[in-house]
Amino acid sequence: MSALPLVKRTDPLMHESKRFEQQIEFLLELDALKGVLRRSYLLHSQRPENSAEHSWHIATMALVLAEYADRAVDVSRVAAMLLIHDAVEIDAGDTYCYDQAGARDKAQREKMAADRIFGILPPEQCRWFRDLWEEFEANQTPEAGFANAVDRLMPLLHNYYSGGKSWKEHGISTAMVRKRMEPLRDASKGLWDYALMLIDKAAAAGYLIPET
Amino acid sequence: MSALPLVKRTDPLMHESKRFEQQIEFLLELDALKGVLRRSYLLHSQRPENSAEHSWHIATMALVLAEYADRAVDVSRVAAMLLIHDAVEIDAGDTYCYDQAGARDKAQREKMAADRIFGILPPEQCRWFRDLWEEFEANQTPEAGFANAVDRLMPLLHNYYSGGKSWKEHGISTAMVRKRMEPLRDASKGLWDYALMLIDKAAAAGYLIPET
Repeated sequence: MSALPLVKRTDPLMHESKRFEQQIEFLLELDALKGVLRRSYLLHSQRPENSAEHSWHIATMALVLAEYADRAVDVSRVAAMLLIHDAVEIDAGDTYCYDQAGARDKAQREKMAADRIFGILPPEQCRWFRDLWEEFEANQTPEAGFANAVDRLMPLLHNYYSGGKSWKEHGISTAMVRKRMEPLRDASKGLWDYALMLIDKAAAAGYLIPET
Repeated sequence: MSALPLVKRTDPLMHESKRFEQQIEFLLELDALKGVLRRSYLLHSQRPENSAEHSWHIATMALVLAEYADRAVDVSRVAAMLLIHDAVEIDAGDTYCYDQAGARDKAQREKMAADRIFGILPPEQCRWFRDLWEEFEANQTPEAGFANAVDRLMPLLHNYYSGGKSWKEHGISTAMVRKRMEPLRDASKGLWDYALMLIDKAAAAGYLIPET
């Protein structure tokens, strides 16, 4: 968490400060992410996953699987990135990854959401979270590469281990999933190979529309 | 994340290794935490919060409020601790913090759960997560102190900003909440003062049973 500006605050009555008020307002606002539903289903229930619990799951996944990153990564930076990578969905909603119409204005919708949501924070914390989110989206650094990899891999596991329920509902093909997994190739050869193997097994089980 | 053993894995066919299989099994098992319900209600909905989304919320909270820790803390270690602090609830369930009967065998139930759940992981990762969880429970280090503080503060916010709904359902008094918040005093004087102020406001609003 090297880049997080950490200034000791010991002001008396700090909780009456504008800074603290902004931080609490941001934390209360985040609660809404628990109401943003994704297309994937839980493994132990028939209900769809929400974006808050998804963020928790993949931040933890990053801790467990960090050894498979092909480039050296600061794991705590990856985890922080994943904790807030979906915060913009509070305003912009979850755009299904195979929704071509939704993809067209996704960037614009999410940028506006980032302006408002991270903008609740005090300026330098706003900047820190905003930079982290933009780094994730740009997917150029080793940390962003690995964060994007686990963000793709977990839904593959969810889909595979729930019998392809969501894939079948949306008519998803083998080729579409393989394309979706491509960021894994540059981030982790091992996880990419694993993903390809799972896609083959999913295709064989009839969870995906075969390639023509 | 200084203590996390991070060994580069570049074995061909790593995904066929027992190690990788254990890691994936652990990550799939974690999904069940999304089905463990707490007593607190969401702010934007009438449904109870689950332990996975709660873990996400307070790990993020630790990043935002770290500046208020009275002792220097490694924020990424706090966040990692909070990501897994409730994993034992998959087996042990969420023991309501004001449930005196449940508190009696809580430690034993959670210890057994930790044996099984962290035991799914490869040995040195099991050790790492287990140590982190035990550190949280023992509440002696600066990181554990701050992690416990945010774990107490967020439910206070949830209860206060949902009109004391859960407190009223369970007949909770001002004195009970003040006692529950005590770990904040040693971790962050600023957050402790804030919590006391919120409790006073909650009492004045009739959300809590007054002290006799």
